[in-house]
Amino acid sequence: MKIGVLGIAGVGLIGGSVGLAAKARGLAGRVIGIGRSVDHLETARRLGAIDEYRLDLQEGAIACDLLYLATPVQTIIAQIAELSALTPDRELVVTDGGSAKVAIVRAAEQLPSGIRFVGGHPMAGSEQSGVEAASAGLYEGATYVVTPVDSTDAKALEMVSELASGLGAHVVTMDPEEHDRSVAAISHLPHILAGALLKTADTRGDTARALAAGSFRDLTRVADSPAVLWRDICAANREPLLAVISEVKGELDRVEQMLSGCDDDGLERWFSEGRRIHESFQMRRESEP
Amino acid sequence: MKIGVLGIAGVGLIGGSVGLAAKARGLAGRVIGIGRSVDHLETARRLGAIDEYRLDLQEGAIACDLLYLATPVQTIIAQIAELSALTPDRELVVTDGGSAKVAIVRAAEQLPSGIRFVGGHPMAGSEQSGVEAASAGLYEGATYVVTPVDSTDAKALEMVSELASGLGAHVVTMDPEEHDRSVAAISHLPHILAGALLKTADTRGDTARALAAGSFRDLTRVADSPAVLWRDICAANREPLLAVISEVKGELDRVEQMLSGCDDDGLERWFSEGRRIHESFQMRRESEP
Repeated sequence: MKIGVLGIAGVGLIGGSVGLAAKARGLAGRVIGIGRSVDHLETARRLGAIDEYRLDLQEGAIACDLLYLATPVQTIIAQIAELSALTPDRELVVTDGGSAKVAIVRAAEQLPSGIRFVGGHPMAGSEQSGVEAASAGLYEGATYVVTPVDSTDAKALEMVSELASGLGAHVVTMDPEEHDRSVAAISHLPHILAGALLKTADTRGDTARALAAGSFRDLTRVADSPAVLWRDICAANREPLLAVISEVKGELDRVEQMLSGCDDDGLERWFSEGRRIHESFQMRRESEP
Repeated sequence: MKIGVLGIAGVGLIGGSVGLAAKARGLAGRVIGIGRSVDHLETARRLGAIDEYRLDLQEGAIACDLLYLATPVQTIIAQIAELSALTPDRELVVTDGGSAKVAIVRAAEQLPSGIRFVGGHPMAGSEQSGVEAASAGLYEGATYVVTPVDSTDAKALEMVSELASGLGAHVVTMDPEEHDRSVAAISHLPHILAGALLKTADTRGDTARALAAGSFRDLTRVADSPAVLWRDICAANREPLLAVISEVKGELDRVEQMLSGCDDDGLERWFSEGRRIHESFQMRRESEP
């Protein structure tokens, strides 16, 4: 099922990569970029991520068969509110790539019946940002979560799932709550730990800067992501994030107790257990299709 | 100043890489491996990391001009105790590659006057282990810390510094206390955060396993390191580690408060600050020779 007109609101790393892949793989007849900056949209067109563009969301939306919201989470919610005032004369399917799903799926309940919403989240990204960092291969082999709910239209779900697999991703369906609890642990928490590590290392000054090597580089790479994206994600996923922060602090408490109590066998078991869990995550990855 | 006979006690990732580089760069006339497993030492010889080997530390040590202790931290301390019973008939310089320096440098005070000790720590490694993972290029461009104290012999310091720069590393001199405080933040804390993240993610089960992507992979790569190494490092660097764990928990408390208090501007500033610190660490790295 080829998409006639694919609209992409927010042609940055995520949206730009959707556009490049859709064009490279012939998934859509035409790709319209939607944004506020002519310069930026011209760059996206020059790079081949879109064919043309609109500066107005509602005007762009009524020209589309499928509209992909690829903006920060709070902007997605604001755009859904803006779309709810539309009365499109043909059916419009709307999806998004936001990193927190419950708040977005809930906001989409206000959309009129002619607009069919399906939440999604491609589990691929980069610490880079902007359409210049976009690539047609970003989603190849990645996991792509779609989060239908009871009210989700079956045909719209099929269209979005086909887009995701058309991008080269492996589609996984789960409910928005389960998604948010999982990404709090495996995606949002790593960003917070990276920030907390950087602030702690910063107080050690230039000596720490001189000695920082591989493990520090790995743990902090994600900190290059734009702050506004992470503010939005945290704000949209407060409760699950508070739960994982509490758990990770509990683990740090355990390490503190073993250190101050000279429980070296306990420390060895703790590190062994981490290594075992790490292996279980790697095995899972290697067994993916 | 070429080393006559270089001894390496513990021919794994670190010791094996020293041996391979010393032979590739002609830094020593002969390289003797010292260990307990014939199989393992035969593998090291076959891979070209050593020329010959001894199974007894004292016997190996008296054959050397420079002895490099490349074992886990607590083993280094035990080996120093063993060496203190030696009465070598020629001068012997001993150095090590341990990740915590105060405990080791303190242990070395018991060595007889004919044995000159200089502590060191190459800031390069890998989550892999064993001589099979060793490479002659491991230290090229890396920072190599040497930690002389008042009692350190000047000629021995020169010999160890020349070995380190001969390996291709950039030599930095600092006192053991400053080293331990810095590596607690930039090396030991990342390993503990990786472990705490894995344990937290593990409680989210298979869904977390299905969704784990780039940021999770980066943050947890170091968890493949052998548990015994990290037990030893923690045990030898308790106080500095307790200090950084307390600081990182303080940062997590701040994030918790901003999340639960809906202070989204504060969250954005917190992430921005992390990004700025990250840039300052990267600039430092790029400006290195």
